[in-house]
Amino acid sequence: MELFLDCLPCMHRQVLEAARIATTDEACQARILDRAALTLARRSEFASAPAMAQAIHEIVRVETGVADPYASIKRRDLDAALTLEPLLRQFAADSDDPLRTALKVAATGNVMDSAIYSDLDIAACVTEELRRPFARCDLTELSADLASARRVLVLGDNAGEVVFDKILLAALAADGRELSYAVRGEPIINDATLDDARYAGVDAYASLVSSGSSAPGTILESCTEEFRELFRAADVVISKGQGNFESLSASGRPMYFLLKAKCALIAGRLGTAVGDYALIRRDVG
Amino acid sequence: MELFLDCLPCMHRQVLEAARIATTDEACQARILDRAALTLARRSEFASAPAMAQAIHEIVRVETGVADPYASIKRRDLDAALTLEPLLRQFAADSDDPLRTALKVAATGNVMDSAIYSDLDIAACVTEELRRPFARCDLTELSADLASARRVLVLGDNAGEVVFDKILLAALAADGRELSYAVRGEPIINDATLDDARYAGVDAYASLVSSGSSAPGTILESCTEEFRELFRAADVVISKGQGNFESLSASGRPMYFLLKAKCALIAGRLGTAVGDYALIRRDVG
Repeated sequence: MELFLDCLPCMHRQVLEAARIATTDEACQARILDRAALTLARRSEFASAPAMAQAIHEIVRVETGVADPYASIKRRDLDAALTLEPLLRQFAADSDDPLRTALKVAATGNVMDSAIYSDLDIAACVTEELRRPFARCDLTELSADLASARRVLVLGDNAGEVVFDKILLAALAADGRELSYAVRGEPIINDATLDDARYAGVDAYASLVSSGSSAPGTILESCTEEFRELFRAADVVISKGQGNFESLSASGRPMYFLLKAKCALIAGRLGTAVGDYALIRRDVG
Repeated sequence: MELFLDCLPCMHRQVLEAARIATTDEACQARILDRAALTLARRSEFASAPAMAQAIHEIVRVETGVADPYASIKRRDLDAALTLEPLLRQFAADSDDPLRTALKVAATGNVMDSAIYSDLDIAACVTEELRRPFARCDLTELSADLASARRVLVLGDNAGEVVFDKILLAALAADGRELSYAVRGEPIINDATLDDARYAGVDAYASLVSSGSSAPGTILESCTEEFRELFRAADVVISKGQGNFESLSASGRPMYFLLKAKCALIAGRLGTAVGDYALIRRDVG
């Protein structure tokens, strides 16, 4: 999906947040903002918002020397999510529509995205959000596709969300089915890496794989050949979150996008309202 | 007041709004955003947020050829304010503390700033806002200064606000006192110009004067010598709004700043909370 003009002020705000998380040195924060503005001016060189976000957050890392500015925030989110895990399991166990509920739990994990919700009271929010139904849920199509699927790939998003995705992976497990769970190749904002995914304990439910990319999304050209082969060969791909949607909506293969629409532009593309949850099948981009 | 890093994403958002107001040509909007980002990267060259805003909105004018993108918005705000005028007069007439109430009416006019409140229901908002007391009001000091003041200068802010300022100017009128009301020298965002002030009918209450500047504030170096002389010679200066505060808080002369704190940074400098109303005397910057 192309980079919208509306993404620019939003990324500008995000890089200021990241700069302040990475360093208390105000001169360094100012240098980061100046370099970020120059990158924002090169808008036309970037194919999507995640591609530009990758470049901008690289500035934060280079200027501060901090490889993973969000490390402690991710750990906080992971710990908060792990505390919620019994509640999530109970919510899923109580359901008479287990796959839909597991999908909804995984989609709700998307609110753990502290890159957007900086001061969220996560526990209170999750309980309320779990009860909200999908605005759109292509469950019939997914169930049909899963019936014959041997290889299922789930593309993770932010770190705390991984705990929620364990509920989905448990619901997707079936005899002889290979489940893979992909995360970012390097730290980027609060997105999950291999370390974060292991900390969440997701390796007990699926084969963990790195996409190889440090974009906050899945930009296939910057992924490893191993990941691209996994992506191509999977019978079903379920992609979590906005960043993966923005970078894969024109991937050329059928996919399911599972996410909460956090801004008006994404909601417009999904055909939902802002704040809505959706599971949407896209045949080709 | 220096330009804060937090002002950059906010100005980025404002220039996108201005670009879309000025033209429906998306390629032109994109050119404006690219040029604006380059200007945002030159942060250190600008002494204050109004100075940078002036440069950024100049890009909108040059790229679109539209000299006054907010003309119709200003007219809409002025008409809305004129409709409210009887209500404002009655509110002032009912008061047993006329100067404080007139100051409060003028400060409340600050919510007519559609550059920040894009979709405001102005009539409903004003009625509620009028009832909110000042968080800080240096009325004793102002009353003492006014007792001997022969020349009083009020620095206007946005266009719709001018109608509210008529109530203040009426309260400031006294035998032999010269009242002046200053507006921007050229159109900038939704700030009042001479045409806007005349449309509001303020010339019946005070001598109208242009500052000569096209910044959304009062940057003395870019004002006319005539205005600077008026500013220096006035016994009392009452400055309206954030833009004037940001550009004049270090002016070197005693002044009164009358405004609503619309963002955390300004509120921090005023010692108030966001959304608070204040009349604050500053001796020197």
